[in-house]
Amino acid sequence: MMKIDIHTHILPKELPDWKSVLGYGGFIRLDHHKSCGARMLRDDGTFFREIGDNCWDPQVRIKDCDAVGVQVQVLSTVPVMFNYWTKAEHGYDISRFLNDHIAQVCARFPKRFVGLGTIPLQDPTLAIHELERCVKTLGLKGVQIGTHVNGMNLDSQELFDVFSVAQDLGAALFVHPWDMLGHDRMKNYWLPWLVGMPTELAIAISSLIFGGVLEKLPRLKIAFAHGGGAFPGILGRLEHGFHARPDLVAVHNDKSPTEYLQKIYVDSLVHDAAALKYLIEIFGANRIALGTDYPFPLGEMNPGELILSLQEFSTTTKARLLSGTALEWLGMTEKDFI
Amino acid sequence: MMKIDIHTHILPKELPDWKSVLGYGGFIRLDHHKSCGARMLRDDGTFFREIGDNCWDPQVRIKDCDAVGVQVQVLSTVPVMFNYWTKAEHGYDISRFLNDHIAQVCARFPKRFVGLGTIPLQDPTLAIHELERCVKTLGLKGVQIGTHVNGMNLDSQELFDVFSVAQDLGAALFVHPWDMLGHDRMKNYWLPWLVGMPTELAIAISSLIFGGVLEKLPRLKIAFAHGGGAFPGILGRLEHGFHARPDLVAVHNDKSPTEYLQKIYVDSLVHDAAALKYLIEIFGANRIALGTDYPFPLGEMNPGELILSLQEFSTTTKARLLSGTALEWLGMTEKDFI
Repeated sequence: MMKIDIHTHILPKELPDWKSVLGYGGFIRLDHHKSCGARMLRDDGTFFREIGDNCWDPQVRIKDCDAVGVQVQVLSTVPVMFNYWTKAEHGYDISRFLNDHIAQVCARFPKRFVGLGTIPLQDPTLAIHELERCVKTLGLKGVQIGTHVNGMNLDSQELFDVFSVAQDLGAALFVHPWDMLGHDRMKNYWLPWLVGMPTELAIAISSLIFGGVLEKLPRLKIAFAHGGGAFPGILGRLEHGFHARPDLVAVHNDKSPTEYLQKIYVDSLVHDAAALKYLIEIFGANRIALGTDYPFPLGEMNPGELILSLQEFSTTTKARLLSGTALEWLGMTEKDFI
Repeated sequence: MMKIDIHTHILPKELPDWKSVLGYGGFIRLDHHKSCGARMLRDDGTFFREIGDNCWDPQVRIKDCDAVGVQVQVLSTVPVMFNYWTKAEHGYDISRFLNDHIAQVCARFPKRFVGLGTIPLQDPTLAIHELERCVKTLGLKGVQIGTHVNGMNLDSQELFDVFSVAQDLGAALFVHPWDMLGHDRMKNYWLPWLVGMPTELAIAISSLIFGGVLEKLPRLKIAFAHGGGAFPGILGRLEHGFHARPDLVAVHNDKSPTEYLQKIYVDSLVHDAAALKYLIEIFGANRIALGTDYPFPLGEMNPGELILSLQEFSTTTKARLLSGTALEWLGMTEKDFI
């Protein structure tokens, strides 16, 4: 069965020294302290993450994929590279740099990689320019965006045109948590990643629903990481809240959350059979696509293992989860990879 | 089948003018603007919530209960009354005032109401005094606490003795979200209630697990509102994160989250059959007790309706959900209410 992994991250092996070039700090740089690994450092020297060469070397990635039967990885940048906080023109330049790299990797291995760009959402006009370039010029299939833009949720009026252009382009959007809320409450136990990220996704999906964005853009192809985070588990509360207090909740959209379950996609990264079955029960397999967060440790190490372990589901359902949903979301067919 | 609702809120009909008495503001007062309803106002005059007389009148509550077949309500204050932010001695006095009221209601109708107190967690010593008074003197079965104390999570060393005394007393603890994190990101659509509250519970449960509190206090009888909020839905992520990065997660406790599913209780307030089935799958019915958030609009209007609607489950399972788990958690038997 073909496996397409819609949730993988990639970086160029070398990153410019943006702090020196741009005259201010806050960027990520790479310290290649050993042959097959590097440290991601903030440019004040603080450690962000250790990465391996599978984060930048497409041939290492292909070898990893072959070992676990993944035919295609959908590539996107590491969310810390969104850089929405920079001056707009710099965010634009950095996006172009990262997108050119992803496009090169995809052009070199077109049967193994599909690319998603990143766009400088701090300036919606520039973001639209780069979105159009990604799809029309670079051959990327869409873009990855964060769950917020410097604290502004995704239903903000400023961002609507970006979503509208994405719909018109038929671009696939992949929403990934970043810059997680509630730092003060999540100092220990990796809570920003374990609780903050799922919360970010719940806010993002809720905002796009209640804000009417999904209602106004019914053809938007939008997928959310980590199985939609906390959203599926609190869906009953969101739905009940919508009906109990429409004066507070239904202020921009009079349709309820469950009406959008068939209009969004989520990846399968929930790490638990009961949770994946629950996801399938509420969204249906048609809205769920294999995603692993490769090459990071919170990912599914053996892509598709959880999906294949579900004895309740047919081969057809598993095929849909492993590749069919991804193909629909990307606007591609199996033939594109043969 | 007996129904015990472990999650209901009550207020005294009259609240003192604490701002005048104590010399500073921030308290809730009641404006009885009509015969059977009142406005909860902050003492700067801002509106908090409209309530009905079922929030304060035990006889109205009993009438409501009789109409829907609820034998017993477990009473706790409205979380905005925790007042953890006040000077310690004032929090203590306010707790005593509220607890005396709940004890009076329970003494008047002992077959219909069971009481949980509130304790001034901003001062753990006073909190322990009042916890002991609640259980030993007032006949309350335990206390309700918030998901944090002025931003301090529940695994804080300062709070450990409170939990330890609760265990020794055999007191039932009910953890309820309040003062939800992420205000800046949740300005619209009632998101503090719909997303913030579930997140609060996920932080609270995760902190008590990863912080080792539940490990050190294996006989603690602790229940969480709203079916544990976002916690059940992200359990796979928490478990996987624990195993993937023990250097970050297993710093205070080397046992994984799933090992505590049989040591905590949650209420059934998830508003959705698929979610309740998922809850039963991961916790088991033995850890789930009917809870409705009466008399508030985010509650289950017809208590037990969702549980009774689950055709997959036996009468024994339903009885456990409707009253058996509550009795175990409270340390009581059906005979106490006959």
